[in-house]
Amino acid sequence: MTRRLVIIGGDAAGMSAAAQARRLLPANELEIVAFERGSHTSYAACGLPYLIGGLVQNPAELVARNPQEHRAKGIDVRIRQEVIAIDTKASEVTVRDIDTGQESATHYDDLLIATGASGITPPWPGIDADGVLQLRTLADAAQVEQALAAGAQRAVVVGAGYIGLEVAENLLARGLAVTVIEKLDAPMGAVLDADMAAAVADSMRTAGIDLRLGTSVTGFKVSDGRVTAVETETDPVPADLVIIGLGVRANSELARAAGIGVGERGGIIVDDQLRTDTPHVWAAGDCVESRHRMTGRGVVMALGTHANKQGRAVGTNIAGGEAHFGGVLGTAITKFQQLEIARTGLTEREAAEAGLDAFAEITEASNRAGYYPDAQDMRIKIVAERQTGLMLGAQIVGGADAGKRIDVLATALWNGMTAEAVGGMDLSYAPPFSPVWDPVLLAAGKAAAKL
Amino acid sequence: MTRRLVIIGGDAAGMSAAAQARRLLPANELEIVAFERGSHTSYAACGLPYLIGGLVQNPAELVARNPQEHRAKGIDVRIRQEVIAIDTKASEVTVRDIDTGQESATHYDDLLIATGASGITPPWPGIDADGVLQLRTLADAAQVEQALAAGAQRAVVVGAGYIGLEVAENLLARGLAVTVIEKLDAPMGAVLDADMAAAVADSMRTAGIDLRLGTSVTGFKVSDGRVTAVETETDPVPADLVIIGLGVRANSELARAAGIGVGERGGIIVDDQLRTDTPHVWAAGDCVESRHRMTGRGVVMALGTHANKQGRAVGTNIAGGEAHFGGVLGTAITKFQQLEIARTGLTEREAAEAGLDAFAEITEASNRAGYYPDAQDMRIKIVAERQTGLMLGAQIVGGADAGKRIDVLATALWNGMTAEAVGGMDLSYAPPFSPVWDPVLLAAGKAAAKL
Repeated sequence: MTRRLVIIGGDAAGMSAAAQARRLLPANELEIVAFERGSHTSYAACGLPYLIGGLVQNPAELVARNPQEHRAKGIDVRIRQEVIAIDTKASEVTVRDIDTGQESATHYDDLLIATGASGITPPWPGIDADGVLQLRTLADAAQVEQALAAGAQRAVVVGAGYIGLEVAENLLARGLAVTVIEKLDAPMGAVLDADMAAAVADSMRTAGIDLRLGTSVTGFKVSDGRVTAVETETDPVPADLVIIGLGVRANSELARAAGIGVGERGGIIVDDQLRTDTPHVWAAGDCVESRHRMTGRGVVMALGTHANKQGRAVGTNIAGGEAHFGGVLGTAITKFQQLEIARTGLTEREAAEAGLDAFAEITEASNRAGYYPDAQDMRIKIVAERQTGLMLGAQIVGGADAGKRIDVLATALWNGMTAEAVGGMDLSYAPPFSPVWDPVLLAAGKAAAKL
Repeated sequence: MTRRLVIIGGDAAGMSAAAQARRLLPANELEIVAFERGSHTSYAACGLPYLIGGLVQNPAELVARNPQEHRAKGIDVRIRQEVIAIDTKASEVTVRDIDTGQESATHYDDLLIATGASGITPPWPGIDADGVLQLRTLADAAQVEQALAAGAQRAVVVGAGYIGLEVAENLLARGLAVTVIEKLDAPMGAVLDADMAAAVADSMRTAGIDLRLGTSVTGFKVSDGRVTAVETETDPVPADLVIIGLGVRANSELARAAGIGVGERGGIIVDDQLRTDTPHVWAAGDCVESRHRMTGRGVVMALGTHANKQGRAVGTNIAGGEAHFGGVLGTAITKFQQLEIARTGLTEREAAEAGLDAFAEITEASNRAGYYPDAQDMRIKIVAERQTGLMLGAQIVGGADAGKRIDVLATALWNGMTAEAVGGMDLSYAPPFSPVWDPVLLAAGKAAAKL
């Protein structure tokens, strides 16, 4: 008998799962129905800043696979269909057609919740005004494009995290005057320690951004339904366009309403095979809590890499195979113009919050042999446990070839290495690529020596 | 009482050891005397190709620390002094002054042999002719410079390994017509599998190099004491300048003559604390055999990274501390113009030679998200053990940002990871830096899927 897999959400996690399950089981064994409330499937939200910056020319380039292509692969994708309720006893979902408002019930044998995450939007007066946007969807990007076409010249970005930084860079590239307002005392303040974030602030200001740190937004001035300024605790900042980049929260309300377990961080609780606490109900992607490998705690890390890996793993498991998701380290990378910024594991502050006895060491190093032309500097911060020397985290800020070195440190963290052991590894060396002691070795060795 | 450490060889291993021992012990506890037969100490031989190419302007830039600077640090460096015998019973070395020919004996409490390696020079007729060089020392580089100043236009490089490739690139940059003669069927044939080396050959030929593979040199045509052509089994190749780049052998004769154990590969045998089989005699750097972590066998890997690490470790041990050298993976990187070339662990051929039941998988991937501008391709070859999926080695050939990804794989090998585990790691992602699945994850995952 044909089983039916129902998937709620047609983006990275949901469609990776669908593709993997379809790879393993034919349509006469597993019917796959995916409901997506938006109009697109499988698109690269991470590329949106570069779309508005003009580096990516055509929105279609960001769509990895459209609904027709999924259907051709035997996956019944239904767009503009929102699942509004899950009945775990009856094993069915209630679906509303967004255009007609009509509701219907669909039975499932297995259910995958892949509802993603939504941008955080505080209840500030005026937040619904025209010209106040997030950058989460292709429709958002189109609205930015319209604002630019209509002559917007002054942009305000609220929040100096990953999205805020990338949006600011790209709006600057389009010739706008850009102000970034950040409540914390440093850009990337939630993901870097302050001593590493200083270089990011310098770089933003040098680029001409009006960076206002330690500044809280209180609302928006609106005229004729359109934003004209961002109100703060101090001065208002005139704005033709406002992008909110305050991070996300997991879309777990649907699961919670159905009695499916949701964790402290607001994500659906899953085991390492992506099972929820409810039989035949699975969850994957931005809507779940993942296990942080350095603390063992559940965290919500809304990132395409995890969504893809979890989707593939849950697709395997639903198809009767066995795959495990190994957890997360909080590895991330971005850039601001030429400055590369990366992190993995715990910052010094996060380690302290987790109750770990940690110490940290910052090392300055070069991306090339000292005598090789055009060498550029980087700073690497290593966070390690005081008693054991166990590596807990790393942060890198620097020029060319700095950022991706975080992957070496992430691999070291993944394997539970000490700083001393990392400092002794056999990494590659040639003058155009690193000094004899690669910056990673140097930083780990210096941290180990401090023990 | 003051102990005396005698060091034979004033380059990376020897002087790293000296610096580390001095850091740990003052001069009234440990006297350090280093004998160096050349005129320089602590210089970066790896930079020599870039010196002759003109990227590095001044030979002095390659000297990390000169004898005066070492002496100022309390290390008694004596240049142009060659140790010609070791008497392990009497604990003394015989030293010959290269300029005067005078010999004298020096007592040691501890002896460190750091005699390095020498380039392999087959007994080809004419190999001693003017214009036939290796590129191992600053003096060699000066000779190349003289040849260019004297109007050399046709260069032949014998051997297409690391040095051969780098020399060819740099002589080409100086405007010479460059022929590379290689006995094997592929450039980098000793360090890459043939299926990965093909791209290197293409790249060399596209750059205008006359690459002659599967061709054996038989000698040199000499006129008035100066080389005029390289003789091969087929045609002679006219040459104003010949650089021999055939790899190196460990300088272990001095140790062998003193009855100190030398291994099958010709390097001095040491334990992981760099002790030889003879009390109070240590060895480090290019002259020793290191333990290959994937095979457990001794290998001679003449590379500055190992020399520096071993030197530091042995310096610690001689000073009464405890440090271990963790072995080698054979990690290496180089480039030819824009093409980056890297490897770690075992090639498919090396795995077979080691008697391992290995399989291999090649993956093509991009250094950026598909929609991000200027994405460049790379090929990653993963070698893994068939029964266990244990990673045995990796090779990368590709454009920008390809090569240094080898360090992630080296870290995985160092930790004994399976291909499947590597494919599940939390590596960094953002569109300017990688696709959602980093090439490393993609390659490891594809290899794991083949099991």
